Amino acid sequence: MVSFESDYISGAHPEVLKALCDTNLETLTGYGLDPYCESAREKIRKACGCPDAEVEFLVGGTQTNEVVISTMLKDYEGVVAAQTGHVSVHEAGAIEYTGHKVLELPEVNGKICCEDLEQYVAGFYADGNHEHMVFPGMVYISHPTEYGTLYTKDELEKIAAVCRRYDMRFFLDGARMGYGLMSRETDVTLSDIAACCDVFYIGGTKVGALCGEAVVFTRGSRPAHFMTSVKKRGALLAKGRLLGVQFDALFTDDLYFRIGRHAIEMAERMKKIFADRGYEFFLESSTNQQFIILENPVMEKLQKDLAFSFWEKKDEDHTVVRFATSWSTTEEDLQLLAEVLDREASGI
Amino acid sequence: MVSFESDYISGAHPEVLKALCDTNLETLTGYGLDPYCESAREKIRKACGCPDAEVEFLVGGTQTNEVVISTMLKDYEGVVAAQTGHVSVHEAGAIEYTGHKVLELPEVNGKICCEDLEQYVAGFYADGNHEHMVFPGMVYISHPTEYGTLYTKDELEKIAAVCRRYDMRFFLDGARMGYGLMSRETDVTLSDIAACCDVFYIGGTKVGALCGEAVVFTRGSRPAHFMTSVKKRGALLAKGRLLGVQFDALFTDDLYFRIGRHAIEMAERMKKIFADRGYEFFLESSTNQQFIILENPVMEKLQKDLAFSFWEKKDEDHTVVRFATSWSTTEEDLQLLAEVLDREASGI
Amino acid sequence: MVSFESDYISGAHPEVLKALCDTNLETLTGYGLDPYCESAREKIRKACGCPDAEVEFLVGGTQTNEVVISTMLKDYEGVVAAQTGHVSVHEAGAIEYTGHKVLELPEVNGKICCEDLEQYVAGFYADGNHEHMVFPGMVYISHPTEYGTLYTKDELEKIAAVCRRYDMRFFLDGARMGYGLMSRETDVTLSDIAACCDVFYIGGTKVGALCGEAVVFTRGSRPAHFMTSVKKRGALLAKGRLLGVQFDALFTDDLYFRIGRHAIEMAERMKKIFADRGYEFFLESSTNQQFIILENPVMEKLQKDLAFSFWEKKDEDHTVVRFATSWSTTEEDLQLLAEVLDREASGI
Amino acid sequence: MVSFESDYISGAHPEVLKALCDTNLETLTGYGLDPYCESAREKIRKACGCPDAEVEFLVGGTQTNEVVISTMLKDYEGVVAAQTGHVSVHEAGAIEYTGHKVLELPEVNGKICCEDLEQYVAGFYADGNHEHMVFPGMVYISHPTEYGTLYTKDELEKIAAVCRRYDMRFFLDGARMGYGLMSRETDVTLSDIAACCDVFYIGGTKVGALCGEAVVFTRGSRPAHFMTSVKKRGALLAKGRLLGVQFDALFTDDLYFRIGRHAIEMAERMKKIFADRGYEFFLESSTNQQFIILENPVMEKLQKDLAFSFWEKKDEDHTVVRFATSWSTTEEDLQLLAEVLDREASGI
Repeated sequence: MVSFESDYISGAHPEVLKALCDTNLETLTGYGLDPYCESAREKIRKACGCPDAEVEFLVGGTQTNEVVISTMLKDYEGVVAAQTGHVSVHEAGAIEYTGHKVLELPEVNGKICCEDLEQYVAGFYADGNHEHMVFPGMVYISHPTEYGTLYTKDELEKIAAVCRRYDMRFFLDGARMGYGLMSRETDVTLSDIAACCDVFYIGGTKVGALCGEAVVFTRGSRPAHFMTSVKKRGALLAKGRLLGVQFDALFTDDLYFRIGRHAIEMAERMKKIFADRGYEFFLESSTNQQFIILENPVMEKLQKDLAFSFWEKKDEDHTVVRFATSWSTTEEDLQLLAEVLDREASGI
Repeated sequence: MVSFESDYISGAHPEVLKALCDTNLETLTGYGLDPYCESAREKIRKACGCPDAEVEFLVGGTQTNEVVISTMLKDYEGVVAAQTGHVSVHEAGAIEYTGHKVLELPEVNGKICCEDLEQYVAGFYADGNHEHMVFPGMVYISHPTEYGTLYTKDELEKIAAVCRRYDMRFFLDGARMGYGLMSRETDVTLSDIAACCDVFYIGGTKVGALCGEAVVFTRGSRPAHFMTSVKKRGALLAKGRLLGVQFDALFTDDLYFRIGRHAIEMAERMKKIFADRGYEFFLESSTNQQFIILENPVMEKLQKDLAFSFWEKKDEDHTVVRFATSWSTTEEDLQLLAEVLDREASGI
Repeated sequence: MVSFESDYISGAHPEVLKALCDTNLETLTGYGLDPYCESAREKIRKACGCPDAEVEFLVGGTQTNEVVISTMLKDYEGVVAAQTGHVSVHEAGAIEYTGHKVLELPEVNGKICCEDLEQYVAGFYADGNHEHMVFPGMVYISHPTEYGTLYTKDELEKIAAVCRRYDMRFFLDGARMGYGLMSRETDVTLSDIAACCDVFYIGGTKVGALCGEAVVFTRGSRPAHFMTSVKKRGALLAKGRLLGVQFDALFTDDLYFRIGRHAIEMAERMKKIFADRGYEFFLESSTNQQFIILENPVMEKLQKDLAFSFWEKKDEDHTVVRFATSWSTTEEDLQLLAEVLDREASGI
Repeated sequence: MVSFESDYISGAHPEVLKALCDTNLETLTGYGLDPYCESAREKIRKACGCPDAEVEFLVGGTQTNEVVISTMLKDYEGVVAAQTGHVSVHEAGAIEYTGHKVLELPEVNGKICCEDLEQYVAGFYADGNHEHMVFPGMVYISHPTEYGTLYTKDELEKIAAVCRRYDMRFFLDGARMGYGLMSRETDVTLSDIAACCDVFYIGGTKVGALCGEAVVFTRGSRPAHFMTSVKKRGALLAKGRLLGVQFDALFTDDLYFRIGRHAIEMAERMKKIFADRGYEFFLESSTNQQFIILENPVMEKLQKDLAFSFWEKKDEDHTVVRFATSWSTTEEDLQLLAEVLDREASGI
């Protein structure tokens, strides 16, 4: 059995784990005030080209979305997101739990576009009843999206412009940002993201850490007494070092980018393995997640030797499934994949 | 200026007001425990053909939706509603404020259908990731809908059947129920509603009361310690008599139904006035709300002499507006309407 | 049976009811935008000596506390109140329902003092762990308090000074303000309250209205898009006229103050009736609520002819009960009270 | 500088870290469904003598309190806790954030007693207004308490009996349970706790893990669809292995108890070091936290060489501070402590 189930099937990247081991016996203060957190913050600020950014560490992705969105929205505001967005569908109502609505926009390949956004927001303000409705106070996108697709720099800038025009904050969920930045098809850098967004996060959990996400507040956007709000949401880690040490390692010697690059290379080869054998892709993705359409009986056969994820039902006879690579995907994994597919093709 | 702006532009129906005046000096205990509340409960139970129902009074429609939905959902559940539903669009995020997501279904003329519902819920349980998603725990419809349309008895029964199959509660928002029950096109009675739903409310505010909605819990569905939960949401009225006396009057000598019938008759004549003059209807409604498509310059002219409501933009040049009748709509109002339209037609 | 159970046992004061009847057939727009609301606002601003105040109407007391506190606190803040405060004890957790803690201070006769407040807040900021604690963001008092007692002008000013020193808002719950302002023992005027507080409310429900509270925001303290936040909490009344007309009447010809004065006069006579017969008072109150200590068997006998409220257990053998007067208390009520007490004394 | 600042100043116990390293490259499914989580669950069930218990892993203490309390309380209920309880004071309002009140009881040395509890709850139900108040639905204690003190078996059983009598759940916060179980003064075992409580948690963060708490639901008390509720609160860890592997290690070869025992031995020697030099203890603690009363100038001097925690102001001239031991406290640390104290005494 070889697994492409997700990008969080292994532990930490060895360099991250080594950093945890090396620092394990050090005596450090808690709650993110230790020198590793500080060092990680500084390295992230540099990588973002944003010397004034404020960087905070949280444990997981849904938690980060929940904390950021609920502390940055005003009482009467909601967050605009693609109807396939993680916050819309796959967080068990975490945003609503904080008392805020997710305002869903149509999407193409997981992405929203500035035209739909502008039309939605302009329509909101033109509606005579809008004081009885949820104000759009923030735009949420993920990059890569739920479908592994990427925004272009131009698209990000246009969305940012709409946000500024209508006094909305712009939040980018970078749970898999490392893979987006290292795609061969992207023209977006970390600095571009920092320039466009009011807040974004650099995902650790899915890019080589055991856990952890680094939230970057640009333009002084960090809410006052953020630590207290984090604590209030049960999201403050006592041993903050666990996050600081990991992110310090991820941003040492470009590890974060090396992890991304490796997974992208593996994904490209995986893609070729599928394409060569005539498999149909649900959409074109240039990142570490590939979505394949399988006939249901084929899916069932493959599940005996391969671990992958159910994504969605395509029709009565077909299912969309996801194959993901990560830092831990090996040549051997790919070879086994090819062998399984070949065996399936030959009807064994 | 004559107003068709809404069905809550006047005070109380004179018989309701008289009851308030007649009982004003009586000494009554608070919080819904007085004999008028009790009498109103009993009359409503009878009108519903549901002798075991539990009836509670609340002040307004959004409040009622918020209280009912949030006390009847389990922590991990959300409420399914049409994407044009009042809870989806026009309550400023009141449901989300209680920590629960509104799961939006497509609609036709404001109505959801049992096929879409079944498909959505079956799809939910078939989704391998559904433990990461919001469970559908309740179905919310309004009858009449936001667009004045009505469910048939067959449609209600089919939705109820899906609800039972998937352990969802069925909640009917009857803010304008009086107009629905008195439509000439309906085959749905109050008893049918009570038989289909786990909970519903009979709207007072929009059907002749100053304020007030009567929530009917069938099948023992009232949440434990409901009064405490109502208080916790700031929705418990100290002088509960205000609600009890009004509903007691509304359910005396069929007043509630007489109000409905009058408004329907006025609406039918109003409809004819528009139709005779070639106005286009946005959709076919058999209740007290009529939706007309106006060219924007016509709309602006009419606004000088008529009060009506913006509903939605149809396209660049046209707007959908709403004209509503109520207990207080008079012959004279209709005559004035006809005159204004005629004047407009003659280009004066 | 004669009732002193509360100050909300009757309907509306006749002048208030007359205003509702007189305006009943007028066509008015909803949601607090009608001319009666506007007129009431202007009269209240004048009565407060605060021409820039913003005035909003809500339906009930707990609702008002919940809406005001939750829209004015920041995420990381809670509200400081007496441990016997209405928000602390008798609102079923309505403040906590909005996600904010009530920080309880010791009280004497229902009042907090500026020394305890200062000590609490200074102690908070001196605590090395205060970033892990709830920040005191607002001070809540009621005037009169739960025990009918009153703050002096000096006490209000001192509390206000502490609030300003520590960036806390100062909120006064005036559910029974009319009785406080008309007490013979007070040196506090409505203008004093407006000068001290950032926000306060003038209670209607308990001072002659069917329902309704007028919230006064001084110093531009009204939260942005307040109507939307009110709607979100299910607290926006469709027929806002119900509140506007009543408050317009209450602030016409000093009705609000006449109601207060009448109830105070009745309370003073009631007090004498008890005192003359040797009853023990739980504390000295100069407002419309009087708290009497009864031996339990006496309490049970009196309950046959008198309605009054349980307040709290004093000890195994004694209970504190409340007798309240209002606009509807009559000479005859007092005479009956005296007779019942005399009968009890004579052992009949 | 030697640190006794807390029991979370070091990383993981070496055996825990080793387990993380050993399993790092294994491919494991996420969200707590991996075999290490399952193995840890089984070991914990055995250690608790509770074969039917359901065990779930969460990341931190405040998060655990928030998730457990909010999923187990009914809408109209709050949680009873000591006024010095962690949930009352040091969680930034996390419980209130979930919409529930903390009902505070008086405490002695951080502990509540069954008499106060019974009196509070009996008083609640005897109060004629209790439907307007927050129902006591759960009792929360910590063991050890915030002050390092311990309940006796008899005390736990008596509190449990009150809970059962009044239909309240009994929840024990065992953030530092390892130190409580290994105290020389306790008669309470893990099985006793499992027998008394409806739910409790075994703390990992403060007892040798990098993070993690194991929640044990006894008597089938785990809320339905708990994973979804955890996700909704942003508390579901993608790499659930991080928690499973650590707890599996902690419950292998009695590591959890060995860690507790070591810290207790170190604490006893630390205590003697202070006692021998005439330092005054704020209270008697038999666990790993010791509370010392220091004159303020002494405190300032000691802070140059020792890290410890501010606890509370005793009076103008004295401060209560906390010294804590843990798995990582060494002989050398204690020796350095003694030297620093001796130096201070000799006025150097």
